[in-house]
Amino acid sequence: MFELGVVYRNITRADRAATDALAALGSATVHEAMGRVGLMKPYMRPIYSGAQTSGTAVTVLLHPGDNWMMHVVAEQIQLGDIVVAAITADCTDGYFGDLLATSFQARGARGLIIDAGVRDVKTLKEMNFPVWSKAISSKGTIKATLGSVNIPVVCAGMSVQPGDAVVADDDGIVVVPKAMVQKTLEAAQAREANEGEKRNKLASGILGLDMYNMRPALEKAGLKYID
Amino acid sequence: MFELGVVYRNITRADRAATDALAALGSATVHEAMGRVGLMKPYMRPIYSGAQTSGTAVTVLLHPGDNWMMHVVAEQIQLGDIVVAAITADCTDGYFGDLLATSFQARGARGLIIDAGVRDVKTLKEMNFPVWSKAISSKGTIKATLGSVNIPVVCAGMSVQPGDAVVADDDGIVVVPKAMVQKTLEAAQAREANEGEKRNKLASGILGLDMYNMRPALEKAGLKYID
Amino acid sequence: MFELGVVYRNITRADRAATDALAALGSATVHEAMGRVGLMKPYMRPIYSGAQTSGTAVTVLLHPGDNWMMHVVAEQIQLGDIVVAAITADCTDGYFGDLLATSFQARGARGLIIDAGVRDVKTLKEMNFPVWSKAISSKGTIKATLGSVNIPVVCAGMSVQPGDAVVADDDGIVVVPKAMVQKTLEAAQAREANEGEKRNKLASGILGLDMYNMRPALEKAGLKYID
Amino acid sequence: MFELGVVYRNITRADRAATDALAALGSATVHEAMGRVGLMKPYMRPIYSGAQTSGTAVTVLLHPGDNWMMHVVAEQIQLGDIVVAAITADCTDGYFGDLLATSFQARGARGLIIDAGVRDVKTLKEMNFPVWSKAISSKGTIKATLGSVNIPVVCAGMSVQPGDAVVADDDGIVVVPKAMVQKTLEAAQAREANEGEKRNKLASGILGLDMYNMRPALEKAGLKYID
Amino acid sequence: MFELGVVYRNITRADRAATDALAALGSATVHEAMGRVGLMKPYMRPIYSGAQTSGTAVTVLLHPGDNWMMHVVAEQIQLGDIVVAAITADCTDGYFGDLLATSFQARGARGLIIDAGVRDVKTLKEMNFPVWSKAISSKGTIKATLGSVNIPVVCAGMSVQPGDAVVADDDGIVVVPKAMVQKTLEAAQAREANEGEKRNKLASGILGLDMYNMRPALEKAGLKYID
Amino acid sequence: MFELGVVYRNITRADRAATDALAALGSATVHEAMGRVGLMKPYMRPIYSGAQTSGTAVTVLLHPGDNWMMHVVAEQIQLGDIVVAAITADCTDGYFGDLLATSFQARGARGLIIDAGVRDVKTLKEMNFPVWSKAISSKGTIKATLGSVNIPVVCAGMSVQPGDAVVADDDGIVVVPKAMVQKTLEAAQAREANEGEKRNKLASGILGLDMYNMRPALEKAGLKYID
Repeated sequence: MFELGVVYRNITRADRAATDALAALGSATVHEAMGRVGLMKPYMRPIYSGAQTSGTAVTVLLHPGDNWMMHVVAEQIQLGDIVVAAITADCTDGYFGDLLATSFQARGARGLIIDAGVRDVKTLKEMNFPVWSKAISSKGTIKATLGSVNIPVVCAGMSVQPGDAVVADDDGIVVVPKAMVQKTLEAAQAREANEGEKRNKLASGILGLDMYNMRPALEKAGLKYID
Repeated sequence: MFELGVVYRNITRADRAATDALAALGSATVHEAMGRVGLMKPYMRPIYSGAQTSGTAVTVLLHPGDNWMMHVVAEQIQLGDIVVAAITADCTDGYFGDLLATSFQARGARGLIIDAGVRDVKTLKEMNFPVWSKAISSKGTIKATLGSVNIPVVCAGMSVQPGDAVVADDDGIVVVPKAMVQKTLEAAQAREANEGEKRNKLASGILGLDMYNMRPALEKAGLKYID
Repeated sequence: MFELGVVYRNITRADRAATDALAALGSATVHEAMGRVGLMKPYMRPIYSGAQTSGTAVTVLLHPGDNWMMHVVAEQIQLGDIVVAAITADCTDGYFGDLLATSFQARGARGLIIDAGVRDVKTLKEMNFPVWSKAISSKGTIKATLGSVNIPVVCAGMSVQPGDAVVADDDGIVVVPKAMVQKTLEAAQAREANEGEKRNKLASGILGLDMYNMRPALEKAGLKYID
Repeated sequence: MFELGVVYRNITRADRAATDALAALGSATVHEAMGRVGLMKPYMRPIYSGAQTSGTAVTVLLHPGDNWMMHVVAEQIQLGDIVVAAITADCTDGYFGDLLATSFQARGARGLIIDAGVRDVKTLKEMNFPVWSKAISSKGTIKATLGSVNIPVVCAGMSVQPGDAVVADDDGIVVVPKAMVQKTLEAAQAREANEGEKRNKLASGILGLDMYNMRPALEKAGLKYID
Repeated sequence: MFELGVVYRNITRADRAATDALAALGSATVHEAMGRVGLMKPYMRPIYSGAQTSGTAVTVLLHPGDNWMMHVVAEQIQLGDIVVAAITADCTDGYFGDLLATSFQARGARGLIIDAGVRDVKTLKEMNFPVWSKAISSKGTIKATLGSVNIPVVCAGMSVQPGDAVVADDDGIVVVPKAMVQKTLEAAQAREANEGEKRNKLASGILGLDMYNMRPALEKAGLKYID
Repeated sequence: MFELGVVYRNITRADRAATDALAALGSATVHEAMGRVGLMKPYMRPIYSGAQTSGTAVTVLLHPGDNWMMHVVAEQIQLGDIVVAAITADCTDGYFGDLLATSFQARGARGLIIDAGVRDVKTLKEMNFPVWSKAISSKGTIKATLGSVNIPVVCAGMSVQPGDAVVADDDGIVVVPKAMVQKTLEAAQAREANEGEKRNKLASGILGLDMYNMRPALEKAGLKYID
């Protein structure tokens, strides 16, 4: 959060195949596979429901009410990236709209995660360009002060390094550090593997109490049933 | 809110037919019929729009970040119940997802009201399992501490007794005490009865000022018209 | 905000044609055309997505939990108006539902902007009657205390004079003072005029950095690229 | 929360001596002694710091912006009571000021807990009349609608029965059900008993890790020290 | 809120003697005398308790994170003024500290009302320069964009015209339009006149129920006492 | 935020003398000297006013409602440290009270920064042990789940590395990365150096407009004065 006025052009991105494979697993499963860490705060919401994606983070640090660096970060986008935008102070202004989205999409971005506001949300939905944000606001921004691109940032309470993998869907956004992507993918796939079987059992009326063998632990903890 | 580690297995549920009939009337009409009390706080929102249901409350008290008792309450669900989940402190974690929903649905639950977060919301919508919650969050929970099932709880600012009727839709959630369900149903149906006629009058351009004969009272209160 | 118990019947409305033409431009473009002022706070949200409208403001000042004046304002609505409702203190109660919407619609209103709550949102959507509000709540209101109609009000942080033009869509709500409607329309149309060309350029991969010729200013401000 | 327009004159109050003895123990110790339940939400704050009290609850349910029942509850106050005021919907208005405080104090009240706003806070401090509230606001209220006195209420997320013991200080407010006051007092005093000894040990530099013998459990849980 | 880049040098200030006399009455009494309107939102809090003042408003409109116009408004301050600062979007940055306070105080300002943040609060208290703000924050601001001085603004939900009287104390902030200052002062003094007598009665144990003769109205409204 | 169950015993602390010298400069000046970055969010507030300190960060990551690691971090405290506590999800529980404060103080800690709640605040003030927190709450915590000590954390929106310098006072909390402490100290002292002279000028009535020679830039930006 400390270096202003710099753009790092060469960043190491998380493994592409592993990063891409995370999308299908979703943020909740990946978050569990990480050991229940890595989530951004739940005030971050998709501007439309149903989008589910993953990508490599290109980060940008902006000032309140100033979206100048959004144009700078556009140039650093590569196919498969997700832009992660942090602000130096709380702000709900609309930093991003359909024109920038057109540019980001043309450069290969899969979406935007921004700890502030966006606008033109009807058009963004039509463009199928997903955004997770803190607010929706018509409030425009100026272009006056330098921030930075591809430095470590804190976005919605979570630290993000450039090149980290990001998974986002209707449930939220989880950040997977580059070095942990392969291991996290495997752990997430393992979790997912027997979900179908569990679901079938539960659908048939078998209780989690029995399927997970929870009764002894509950009894030991002192749970009492009263008729 | 005070008894921890107990599960009441035999609760008296509100009259089934009367409880079920409340769904069609909706939370706003039922709330009015109650004398404008019984509503949970409006920060509770449906995870998808359009669901409208009623049922008998099975209550569960949980600790922050701990969903162990969700599995315990599942066993107490009967056909036509709605689970009402309260937490001992503010928490937005995702206590509930598609697996628990599969189990709840298999047991006959019509929905979940939870003063915390849920996840897998896309799947829950596909399952047609409605949830009203304070938050949506991928954040997972642990299974470590006992709460209680079917004790009186406070959920989103409203006290709920096990077996009370609950009505939930896009407008909010209203709790009808067991003993008042029949009377409330009748009052709500009476309110509803002449809504069609009122709507036709208003649609034809007749003003509420005249239809409700408000002009004398407004004049008495001192309202002045200035041209 | 200071005159209670009065209804101004004759207000000067913003130019009809210019006001109507603002709808297609949307709140973000109109807000920019105004010089980035005039927006209500972003906590105001549409009760359903996709509506985009403009109209002339008929204002009403209400008390917390009291919607009496909603019936008074209905009589002052003319074709093409949007009702702007302010409250004398923070309140999330449901001041407005399907019956009042039927009346407003019959009188020619295009929508409601209210710094409080509304209910019957499922029906309002079916009626295609758009509302922007702070909350959705079943909580009913009483009819006991006089407010005013067509006085200047502050709604969601923005001052509104009776007859001002209002533009509302998924991005937010902007207020255009009567005297500025024509000029604002022209400025907004000018902004819009070359949007298509810009979009095409950005879609082809040309960067905003180049299209807007930002590189010299960024360099002068001291931006450094690091490989 | 459901019975409007009634005043219960004869309530059973928690044991006086036990209730009074809770004040010295404070809300945190009493809350622990209760098994970590019974606390109101932490948005409730004292209007001045340093007050620490306990008393028997006299409850009142009010409507938003209407303090009529404050005068009704005054008559029901007995020496050693604390008034607990709940509102049927969120409201920050100033329901209570120096005149009502004079009356409450003359009747023997030890303080007020209100899930809304109060005013004249400078004078209340001079009077040494403690209040815990959600807000401070000059906003006045009207006297138009009936609520109730001495019915069960939900105040700041906690259910309160008339006559329950209430403990309030700078840390918050805890409610002790009548039937549990003696037992809670004993448990709280037991907790308090060896606090002095613990404090001396910790002050001498002994670690909680050793004093509570936590190291084996931490090691078993897998804690690793890295040099 | 619409005119940017202008400074009005000649404003009409509310009557000095009447404005000054409002301070002793306090915000709650003045608000009641106004007919319960004119209050800013209760999120505005004094940075230290105990200050009570009144003065004539000099207004300034600023942009988020930009305090340039604070220096411009300083020149327009006259003895007895209070600066009222509004921001074009939500912001908690620290716009004002001890140096600006030194300048404002030297120019004759009695305080600052700002819908944003301030800093150096320890020094401001030592200087006896009262501030009411939305936040306290070390976050600095830039000096890049023009706002305006002495235009009508909306501050904390209330419209303020340059020259209006402002009353601020621990309970909040009330705005009295220039034209209503004398009348409001008289109404406030009339309210205050018999407060001493009322206080004595209440202190002696007489109930508001009797002093205000509320019992018949309560009975008529249907209040029931249950033994 | 990603490594659970580890305690780093050997961390590099920022230069002691430079870190200690930051306290006198205060958070606002240090934040400016950093280039206006490094601040935690302004919702963090001191539990009592007037404390001003600096120290080296010992970090701890905790789970919601679980303060087990507070005892683990106590052992890692050295003279001159400030404990910085982050939580894996939003929580207002009271993680810290007078016993832990006694232990921390005995180990040499100068204060606690915690993105959650604390209790026993009256005693903490008497002990002169400053705490900056998000909430005050009697709510107790359990000791069940491992977190970590001296890993990088995000606290109140700011990333903190173990050993970084922290400056805290009534205005907020700023984090200075180890490597920047000396340079930041010099920049802060340079800012401070001519504050006295500036203050004297402003106190004599000289305007910032003239002292900072702002008039030409304001004129160039288009500011208009209207008489």
